[in-house]
Amino acid sequence: MSSSIQKNLASKNAEYASKFTQGDLALPPAKHYLILTCMDARIDPAAAFGINLGDAHVIRNAGASARDALRSIIISQQLLGTKEIILIKHTGCGMLTFSNDDAHSLVKKNLGPSASAEIATLDFLPFTNIDDAIKGDVEYLKRSAAVSDDVIISGWVYEVETGKVRQIV
Amino acid sequence: MSSSIQKNLASKNAEYASKFTQGDLALPPAKHYLILTCMDARIDPAAAFGINLGDAHVIRNAGASARDALRSIIISQQLLGTKEIILIKHTGCGMLTFSNDDAHSLVKKNLGPSASAEIATLDFLPFTNIDDAIKGDVEYLKRSAAVSDDVIISGWVYEVETGKVRQIV
Repeated sequence: MSSSIQKNLASKNAEYASKFTQGDLALPPAKHYLILTCMDARIDPAAAFGINLGDAHVIRNAGASARDALRSIIISQQLLGTKEIILIKHTGCGMLTFSNDDAHSLVKKNLGPSASAEIATLDFLPFTNIDDAIKGDVEYLKRSAAVSDDVIISGWVYEVETGKVRQIV
Repeated sequence: MSSSIQKNLASKNAEYASKFTQGDLALPPAKHYLILTCMDARIDPAAAFGINLGDAHVIRNAGASARDALRSIIISQQLLGTKEIILIKHTGCGMLTFSNDDAHSLVKKNLGPSASAEIATLDFLPFTNIDDAIKGDVEYLKRSAAVSDDVIISGWVYEVETGKVRQIV
């Protein structure tokens, strides 16, 4: 029995596939870059950031965390040849609204002690200021020995209210 | 001095923002679901999976790994109210092409011993069979105490050659 979400996926995808013409793209990103942005529902990276199919890796997680994305970034660079990182956080991010303690308390309250124990050491990586978080993540990537010194790294904020990006660093 | 990638972002975004009309969407995903898929450059989730702006969280990492995404999944569910997970891996995934040992050797060779030491404990989470990896990740999420039992979870494969999705589990 399919959920309405699953039915939507199947029917919209059938429409997409019926017009699909780009089945011969190569595995490595053609433009050799990666975009790291937030999972936020209000961001459509391909449209908002001008990414053509096949051009770039797109990594998304809660808050566009560079630490959380390090595994993917290393694979992107060392195995698939990307040479530039575009980090884009955004206004109104959910990560600005809670602390690690809040999140752990919520898990315990909603899911119980076994869930709480399972994720006891998890850092939810929230932040309190968007520009500082962007600068901090760019700095983290520049300092990481696992990111080559010749990788170009920039940090941006996307305004969910206007659709505009601004470069921060 | 901007790179050509940065210039492309700025100019394509200016065009996007000039026509942007959806600045009042709410932070929580309107359709209460999340899609977890791969960072692969050949996937455009909004177009291929029928996601309207504001409807769903989109988490992307190397291989669409559920383990890697757990932090984001908990935030999506516990703080932003999503109730369904659509996991989509894809044909021709880069994660099928290397082992953990390969990746660690490559980091040591390309970036040196300090990089190798920095990521010594990192699991790159590669896999050898796409259907098995999908089933394994769905199983992992169903077993995790940090994912509520009433969350609907399905697993799909996206064919980069045809643009089609197929449900696996």
